[in-house]
Amino acid sequence: MTLGKEKELKEIEDVLCFMVEIEKLKDVHRKTRPVGLNRYENSAEHSWHVCISALMLKDFANEEINIDRVIKMLLIHDLGEIDVGDTIIYASETKQLKEEEAKGVERILSLLPAGKAENYIALWHEFEEGESADSKYAKAIDRVPPLLHNLHGNGHSWNDNNIDKETVLSLNSRIEKGSEKLWRVLKGKLEDAFSNGILK
Amino acid sequence: MTLGKEKELKEIEDVLCFMVEIEKLKDVHRKTRPVGLNRYENSAEHSWHVCISALMLKDFANEEINIDRVIKMLLIHDLGEIDVGDTIIYASETKQLKEEEAKGVERILSLLPAGKAENYIALWHEFEEGESADSKYAKAIDRVPPLLHNLHGNGHSWNDNNIDKETVLSLNSRIEKGSEKLWRVLKGKLEDAFSNGILK
Repeated sequence: MTLGKEKELKEIEDVLCFMVEIEKLKDVHRKTRPVGLNRYENSAEHSWHVCISALMLKDFANEEINIDRVIKMLLIHDLGEIDVGDTIIYASETKQLKEEEAKGVERILSLLPAGKAENYIALWHEFEEGESADSKYAKAIDRVPPLLHNLHGNGHSWNDNNIDKETVLSLNSRIEKGSEKLWRVLKGKLEDAFSNGILK
Repeated sequence: MTLGKEKELKEIEDVLCFMVEIEKLKDVHRKTRPVGLNRYENSAEHSWHVCISALMLKDFANEEINIDRVIKMLLIHDLGEIDVGDTIIYASETKQLKEEEAKGVERILSLLPAGKAENYIALWHEFEEGESADSKYAKAIDRVPPLLHNLHGNGHSWNDNNIDKETVLSLNSRIEKGSEKLWRVLKGKLEDAFSNGILK
């Protein structure tokens, strides 16, 4: 076997180790329940949900985006939670927690063959910073499922965590940075639900 | 509000309905347990796992592939299971079941705004046929997680379903159609596990 071939097989072994390690994201529990289910959502199924949602909503981004980059960003965006767990957006994200999450992302992506991690680590930081067109849109989409879970689930996570209407509206208005049109529709739904008493 | 704007807001409403409908994939149970977990895997978290795995293994495909198409294919590949459930690959996939799954995919994708579904329905059929370079690779990746779950989980689903070594090796050798190198590594792992008695 040539050295090149041996190296390739070793690289595949590395990716298989990565695949096993990231299984742990299926056991990271979020703060909302999927529509119709009694259990909490996990961050792996959430990651799928935001990727496919970003794809189907791509025409409504404020700026020109590269949807393929957005999807890659969303595929990896929660990997750091394997080490630190999920935090509800209404909690203050401390600098320390973010640093630990960044370390987790680096640890996990470094399981990949040499030279593969850097690109994805940079993509994760771009997502976290939320300043580029792609990351503004990706972050907007990431915020939508918990709204749908609450709208279709009696505001369960807002009740459980004592989040009031003003906080819901003000924090989620960040969706507007990625898609004004999407926020307009969601804001309307939230206001209706609050005024109908579906949300309290 | 202009007609164009009104149409756009209606389209966003449609995608939000789609997002709620596909939540059901989080409640479709597969036949293997994620590494380290006691519960069965669901098809939504599986979809995330194969998308990120396809991305990280892309350099090992036999043929030139378009990874962005592959990821889109894998994001939607299991949507039909919302209507028909998951089938283990060792069961014979009847023509009737496949037709029902195709109908399910069409029903779900048709929730999207007019003109959006066709492209993804075609992509789903391309995946199912498994003849294009992209679909051969996507199908190969789709087969890997159950092997890892069994290798790291005492062959639980093969024992539960009375699948013997020869069947495991012969059915999964289809991975070779998408990536000979990947199959070479996995086959080695499977043979080691069978000869060490880790798998029976």
